[in-house]
Amino acid sequence: MNMESQPQVNQPYIILIEPQLAENVGMAARAMMNCGLYNMRLVNPRENHLSDKAISASSNAEEILEKAEVFTNIKDAISDIEFLLATTARHRDQTKKVYTAEAAVSEIASKISNNINCGILFGPERTGLRNEDVCLADAIINIPLNPRHCSLNLSQAVLLVGYEFYKTQINSEKEKFVINHSSIADKGKVLKFCEFLESNLDDCGNFKLGEKRDKMIINLRNIFTRNQMTEQELNTLYGAIRHLIRHENKD
Amino acid sequence: MNMESQPQVNQPYIILIEPQLAENVGMAARAMMNCGLYNMRLVNPRENHLSDKAISASSNAEEILEKAEVFTNIKDAISDIEFLLATTARHRDQTKKVYTAEAAVSEIASKISNNINCGILFGPERTGLRNEDVCLADAIINIPLNPRHCSLNLSQAVLLVGYEFYKTQINSEKEKFVINHSSIADKGKVLKFCEFLESNLDDCGNFKLGEKRDKMIINLRNIFTRNQMTEQELNTLYGAIRHLIRHENKD
Repeated sequence: MNMESQPQVNQPYIILIEPQLAENVGMAARAMMNCGLYNMRLVNPRENHLSDKAISASSNAEEILEKAEVFTNIKDAISDIEFLLATTARHRDQTKKVYTAEAAVSEIASKISNNINCGILFGPERTGLRNEDVCLADAIINIPLNPRHCSLNLSQAVLLVGYEFYKTQINSEKEKFVINHSSIADKGKVLKFCEFLESNLDDCGNFKLGEKRDKMIINLRNIFTRNQMTEQELNTLYGAIRHLIRHENKD
Repeated sequence: MNMESQPQVNQPYIILIEPQLAENVGMAARAMMNCGLYNMRLVNPRENHLSDKAISASSNAEEILEKAEVFTNIKDAISDIEFLLATTARHRDQTKKVYTAEAAVSEIASKISNNINCGILFGPERTGLRNEDVCLADAIINIPLNPRHCSLNLSQAVLLVGYEFYKTQINSEKEKFVINHSSIADKGKVLKFCEFLESNLDDCGNFKLGEKRDKMIINLRNIFTRNQMTEQELNTLYGAIRHLIRHENKD
């Protein structure tokens, strides 16, 4: 991978405050890389974020760990940040905007496009951010989850916020779906197959004359026309029908 | 928690195909509960999904594990499902709609509101779903993530899809933000404070006459009016100013 050693300017800093376990820092790095985020800052990590445990948990995202900037206090870690968000699970009695993750990253993406340096704070695993850390942030991110059971670990919180950020960076979300395969059989080919099938059914004597036959044909044609078959699938169907005919003739 | 023992009808089944580790099944249950999903199905889990390891990893979501339905083959696990999606990371050469997670759950939510029984398949940890499992699904879910490094574990995949589903169930996403505290100081109170501050600054002799004073007042008023202070914060400011004055007088 050709990652520059400089921080990526088009994305927020992920700032982990006093993470307890090296493994969790590694998993956070893995989550970040899944989301195309490469700028990690650590404030007073309890364990070595370059230990084997951390590297292994990062699942090939060790370049993020190696490049992570380590600080001894939050003040230094945020000194160059112009727009800072604090991720919290609990309600905080502080007068701040509370963004959903989606709204937050949309705001961050907009700030970044105006060259504003953004950061997102995540607190220690067990306790979350302290109030004195939250009060340094411009606003709060609250990830919308089941109020009856909200129990995210550190890397999952990073993953969800990062995932929302990644979605702002791509426009594939705008397409509702794509068809994997491009060679969709056109209606002419589908109809030709239907006629092939129907004539074979007639030959086998399966169709009784009259209204019933017409209705079956409508049903069969509906089945084969509405599911956007590829030409290859159509050929498979031809093969199957021909196989059935041969089998029939052998009996 | 008062969860009914019957499956919840207003949500999809999360169907894990041959999960390898009990711990991962537990973590998937935890992810599900975070997202308000309670219907788990397991096809040939290799380990006991009710083991201590699984329960512990579920982090208080053991009710999902206890209620999980276990099947010996995928056919039985999906027999009552009317709309089935397969979650895959790799590109599959199968002619199927490929939904993003967001588009997929929007489709599921719409189907569910029409009483259509929905299910989402997740494959084994290391290998993902087999092609013969994917071909049973109506469509594919592909979670949009960094193509340079897409490395989600089972519970993270469940979490991201579940999170997107949860967002369809709430409308808080529509609010861009809320203000935590309701008692915002009105402009009259803010202006009164500004005047109090300005008159004290005048008394202290800090303001030189003329244009400079006017400009400082504009700046100060801008600072205090644009950030929607609460009445309590305003009182804190009054206290701070008064403290400064008393301190000044003592010198």
